[in-house]
Amino acid sequence: MMTPAATALGLHLRVLVESATSSAAQVVVDSPVGMPREPGVLEQLAEGADVLTFEHEHVPNSVLDALAARGVAVHPSAGALRHAQDKIVMRSRLTALGVPCPEWAPVSTELELTEFLESHGGSAVVKTSHGGYDGKGVRVVSSADEVSDWFAAAADGSGAPLLVEERVPFSRELAALVARRPSGELVCWPVVESVQVDGVCSEVTAPAPGLHPATEARAEAVARAVAEGLGVTGVLAVELFEVPDEAGGPPRVLVNELAMRPHNSGHWTIDGAVTSQFEQHLRAVLDLPLGDPSPRARWTVMANVLGTSLPDPTAALPAVAAADAGAKVHLYGKEVRAGRKLGHVNVSGDDLDDVRDRARRAAALLRGDTA
Amino acid sequence: MMTPAATALGLHLRVLVESATSSAAQVVVDSPVGMPREPGVLEQLAEGADVLTFEHEHVPNSVLDALAARGVAVHPSAGALRHAQDKIVMRSRLTALGVPCPEWAPVSTELELTEFLESHGGSAVVKTSHGGYDGKGVRVVSSADEVSDWFAAAADGSGAPLLVEERVPFSRELAALVARRPSGELVCWPVVESVQVDGVCSEVTAPAPGLHPATEARAEAVARAVAEGLGVTGVLAVELFEVPDEAGGPPRVLVNELAMRPHNSGHWTIDGAVTSQFEQHLRAVLDLPLGDPSPRARWTVMANVLGTSLPDPTAALPAVAAADAGAKVHLYGKEVRAGRKLGHVNVSGDDLDDVRDRARRAAALLRGDTA
Repeated sequence: MMTPAATALGLHLRVLVESATSSAAQVVVDSPVGMPREPGVLEQLAEGADVLTFEHEHVPNSVLDALAARGVAVHPSAGALRHAQDKIVMRSRLTALGVPCPEWAPVSTELELTEFLESHGGSAVVKTSHGGYDGKGVRVVSSADEVSDWFAAAADGSGAPLLVEERVPFSRELAALVARRPSGELVCWPVVESVQVDGVCSEVTAPAPGLHPATEARAEAVARAVAEGLGVTGVLAVELFEVPDEAGGPPRVLVNELAMRPHNSGHWTIDGAVTSQFEQHLRAVLDLPLGDPSPRARWTVMANVLGTSLPDPTAALPAVAAADAGAKVHLYGKEVRAGRKLGHVNVSGDDLDDVRDRARRAAALLRGDTA
Repeated sequence: MMTPAATALGLHLRVLVESATSSAAQVVVDSPVGMPREPGVLEQLAEGADVLTFEHEHVPNSVLDALAARGVAVHPSAGALRHAQDKIVMRSRLTALGVPCPEWAPVSTELELTEFLESHGGSAVVKTSHGGYDGKGVRVVSSADEVSDWFAAAADGSGAPLLVEERVPFSRELAALVARRPSGELVCWPVVESVQVDGVCSEVTAPAPGLHPATEARAEAVARAVAEGLGVTGVLAVELFEVPDEAGGPPRVLVNELAMRPHNSGHWTIDGAVTSQFEQHLRAVLDLPLGDPSPRARWTVMANVLGTSLPDPTAALPAVAAADAGAKVHLYGKEVRAGRKLGHVNVSGDDLDDVRDRARRAAALLRGDTA
C-alpha cells in the first residue's frame, strides 16, 4: 500500500520479500527475495538507498544497529523499534515517561503470575513479550497453568519472557495515529475508534464518534509523548483503551499497544485524509515536511475483510460495485486463509450510520456473505 | 497511473512497454518489452487476460481486429478507436451523428486548402489526420505553402492526409469526461475547464467555473452522443470549445478532439473525485458497475509540470512539501526533456483563487522556478 504514494512522489521503492509470490512482490518491481537475518541481505537491500524502513517490527535489532553504524539511515531507529518489538521494554519505558498504561508486571514463574492474578480480581491478560500480533501471543487467563506452555518455552529459551497486564474496564478502543520526522515535526490524524473481534481489528471509524474533547487531547498528548519520548520516526500508531472516569470527568486513556509503521487503524486515511499514512510515512522517514492530515469527509469507516468463503475476494467485485458506487475496495493479493486479513473497504460520507452500514455490507460481500 | 487502482481492486496488470526503462516498467511488475506492430507481441500480451485496453491510440487497427476475431475482449474496440486515430474519420462520423464540430474539410491539395482559407477569413487550423498529440501535427496557417511539407509527405505516402478546420472564436476550452461499459452504463464527471499553452494542456479546473447549466448539459449530451454513437467503452475525453452565442443565449460547445482512454483533462479525478478516471477505466473495460464520479471537494485544480530546469523534479519535493502540506504531487518517472509532461499537481479546496494559486506554485517549484 506504500507503492502508490512512492510512485506519485517519484520515489524508487525496493522491498525485501519472503517469497516471489508475496503481496509486495506482486506490485513492486524491485523486490529481492530473502530474510533479514540472512547475512548480507539487509546490506544489499540498503545499497544506494536514502533510507531503510519497515512494514513490520520483526527485524533483528543487531542488524539494524550495524547498518546504522555504517551510515545507513534507518527509520524508525533500532533504538525506537525495540519498544515495538518487546512489550516489557515498551511498558517499562512508557511507565518511566509517565504515559498512562494498564497495571503490568513482567512474570518469570507461575507463582509470580498467580500473585498478580490474586491482586487484580482473579483474571488478567498475559502476553508474550515478543512476536505477537493480531491476537496471537495474547491470552486472558484466570489461572497460571493456562500459560504453562509459554513458561516452559521461556525457560528452555525457545519462547519469550511474559508480561501480565490488568484487564482494563474499557468502554471502547481508540487509536491515535501520528507521524514524526527526524527533525522533530509531528502531525496527528484525528483520533479514531477501533473495534476488535477476537483480538483482530475489524472496523475503524474516523473520527471516533462522540469523543470528549478532553479525551481527544489526552490521546494526542499520549501519542506525542510516546513519539518524542521514544524518538520514533515515521508513522506511529498508539492503540488505546478509553476508560470511564470514576469521578464523572472525561474518559481517560491507557496505552494498549504500539506500532511503528503504517497500521491497520490508519487504513482509512488512504481515501479519508488529505495525506494517507503511507505517503506520510515516506515523507517522515525521508525527513520531508509532513502532509496535511485533515479528513476529507465528515466520516470515514474502514471495514476489514477477514477471510472469505470465495475462492478469491475479487470474485465479489461485481457485487460490491453493483451494491455501492462509492465503496473504495483495497485487496492485498494474499492467498485465502480462514480469518486472514485479505483487504479492507473505506466508505466516506456525512451520515455515520449510512457510512458504517455501507462499509460493513461491502466487506461482507468480499467475505462471500450473500445475506 | 492505473497501477494503484488495479492493485487496490486485486487486478493483475500486464503492460506492453517500449523499453525496460519506460515509466510503466518502473511500476508494473509484469511489463514485457515490445512494439504492438511486431508479430505475436499483442497475442502474447493478451494471453490469459480478461481484457486488452490502451493508454494511447496509436495501435494498429488490423492487429486489434485480428485479436477480437480470436475472442480477445478489446476495449475500446478497434471500430471505436479508429475515431481517435484518424481525425478525418472522426469529423465525418461526428458530423453524421449531428454532433457540433468546427467547420472542416479534408484537403488533398494546396488549391483545396487555399479555397478553404478564402472562405474562412483567411486563416485556419490544419491537422495531420494521424499521429498528432500535444500540439504536434497541428498548425495555424494563413497560406497553403505553410504546410507544403505535409502535402508532399502525404503525396509520397510517408505522411497522413490533411484535415482543415475553421479557427473557432472560442471563449475558453472545456472537457467532458465520461466512462461507458460494454453493457451500456455511462457516467459523467463534472465538465472541466482546461487551459492550453502552445497546444499542450497546462491547467484544468474542476468543475469549470461559472459554467452555464445549459452549456454543461450540452457538453454532457455531446459526450454521451459520442460515446454511444461511436460505441466507446472505457473512459472517453471530449475536448470542447466553448463559443459565445451570438443571439445572447447560453454558450454553445463544439468538439475539438477525442481521447479514448484516461486523459490529462481527467487527472484531477485522482485526488478530486470519489472514483478516479483510472479506476473507472478498469471498471468500464471489465464491464463492472461504474463508480461514483462525484467531486470530493468544491474545487480541484490540476497544474501540469511541463519540463524542469532541475536534474529531476523530485529534487523539488522538499520545497513543495514545505510550501504546501496539501498539494498532491504526481510524478511520472520520465527522463527530463524541454517542455515534456513530467507530472502534475492536484490541489483541492473551497476557495478557487487559493486552490489555483497553490497548484500553480507547486507545479512551478517542480519546474525549478525559484521566484
